[in-house]
Amino acid sequence: MNIGIVGLGLIGGTIAKSLKNKHYITGYDISKDTIDYALENNIIQKAYNNLNDFFNDNDIIFLCLYPKSMINFIFRNKDIFPKYSIIIEFSGIKKSVISEIESINLDNVDIIYAHPIAGSEKVGIKHSNEYIFDKANFVITPVETNKKGNIDLAISLAKEMGFKNVSLITPSDHDDIIAYTSQLTHVLSLSLVNSLSSTLDTSKFIGDSYRDLTRISMINEKLWPELFIKNKAALLNKIESFESELKAFKGAITAEDYKKLEEMMVKSTTIRSKIAKGDKNDS
Amino acid sequence: MNIGIVGLGLIGGTIAKSLKNKHYITGYDISKDTIDYALENNIIQKAYNNLNDFFNDNDIIFLCLYPKSMINFIFRNKDIFPKYSIIIEFSGIKKSVISEIESINLDNVDIIYAHPIAGSEKVGIKHSNEYIFDKANFVITPVETNKKGNIDLAISLAKEMGFKNVSLITPSDHDDIIAYTSQLTHVLSLSLVNSLSSTLDTSKFIGDSYRDLTRISMINEKLWPELFIKNKAALLNKIESFESELKAFKGAITAEDYKKLEEMMVKSTTIRSKIAKGDKNDS
Repeated sequence: MNIGIVGLGLIGGTIAKSLKNKHYITGYDISKDTIDYALENNIIQKAYNNLNDFFNDNDIIFLCLYPKSMINFIFRNKDIFPKYSIIIEFSGIKKSVISEIESINLDNVDIIYAHPIAGSEKVGIKHSNEYIFDKANFVITPVETNKKGNIDLAISLAKEMGFKNVSLITPSDHDDIIAYTSQLTHVLSLSLVNSLSSTLDTSKFIGDSYRDLTRISMINEKLWPELFIKNKAALLNKIESFESELKAFKGAITAEDYKKLEEMMVKSTTIRSKIAKGDKNDS
Repeated sequence: MNIGIVGLGLIGGTIAKSLKNKHYITGYDISKDTIDYALENNIIQKAYNNLNDFFNDNDIIFLCLYPKSMINFIFRNKDIFPKYSIIIEFSGIKKSVISEIESINLDNVDIIYAHPIAGSEKVGIKHSNEYIFDKANFVITPVETNKKGNIDLAISLAKEMGFKNVSLITPSDHDDIIAYTSQLTHVLSLSLVNSLSSTLDTSKFIGDSYRDLTRISMINEKLWPELFIKNKAALLNKIESFESELKAFKGAITAEDYKKLEEMMVKSTTIRSKIAKGDKNDS
């Protein structure tokens, strides 16, 4: 197949690298440096300046842009998509994205809403790497207008890219669980780092726990505010549930309640071990 | 040297494995299974039942017990430590431990208070592994009665075990920074896992961020309540600073304040990158 990728950043580059042995990969990006790098390193076979040609030459288009840019891209180009185009978009939130795109009223263009739950704290094509997708989770949130054959195609491409679990859930369920597994997780890591108050050289007093919990606090500040705000209700809800748990810990520590703390630890160990069992990517 | 290890768990076993090529290692443990395993796997060269002989035969004793057991162990054996014994204790909190041990009034026994900032969510000698200490941080909190030569010996043993940075700080500074880098980190991971409310199979919707932030929620519930409670004031203080940061995030998300969120993200990226620079163990 001819596969066109719009946005050759970390994720777009990783798609190209993980599919280029089986397909003809082309790319479109507003940065000339990125395009040059992608061509020089054989990450894509061809680059386009003209979007008409790009759309016409490809069987499938992947959109790997930040949500707002992605919606603008579709709006600006709505009249030049060829009939029966298949577009797979990869943004990290779904409900608001889908509602904005559906209001554009595209004819004969089938947009598959997908989310690769994989990434890196590093940005840009230079850090793209097919291992990022290896055995990772992939989610599709089908909408009524999606053709079954196109969903199946997205699933098989996800498998080709190395993803292990492909789940089909509603946009609402997606946003709810991602608010917890991804967004809350990032908010906690950021808050942990930003609450540092010691004047000692922290690097000399950390172990793997701090290393692990704070790696994602090195974050792409151009992307994440949008993800948080566009999923505001679900995220605030998750933050509040977390706050209640934290309050319970504080209470047990204040009361020096060994038994209660032990119970809370047995609970977390049980939940986390069960998740690890279903998650073969885990060590 | 003859080195005796009391408590052959994850840490005691790791000490043995990381020093056995250079020293004669012996062990004492209340579990017969642990002793059998340590001998069968050549982790120690000799095991003792009689503590008098154990103390007399060794040049240095490492105590790798939970804080309360460690203090009890010293109290019970205060009369049989040979004169000029050197003991290195490895508990994760210092102020309360030191004050309890100093009240025992040991004669001619030099206890070095140290903390290897390394570990695993797994427990027991079977998971001990010299890589746990490799390039990790090591902290000593000297007290007035410590002989300089003995502190130097502890430093050189730490280097032999594979630790990279050895820092000497006050017990109070230790408890303050550890409340942040280790204890708060664990409280957050536990609270994150325990606040899970989704009925979906979470394992299908997680990425590395959730994996990393929750690994340590599989926690040794026999050890950690003690560490939290014995460092209560410092830990509660760190939890409260964290809560303020989290509240600031909630405020910025609620207000849809892109600029503020971006600033908070630049701040966390800057702090964390600086820590990573000083921490050569980081990837």
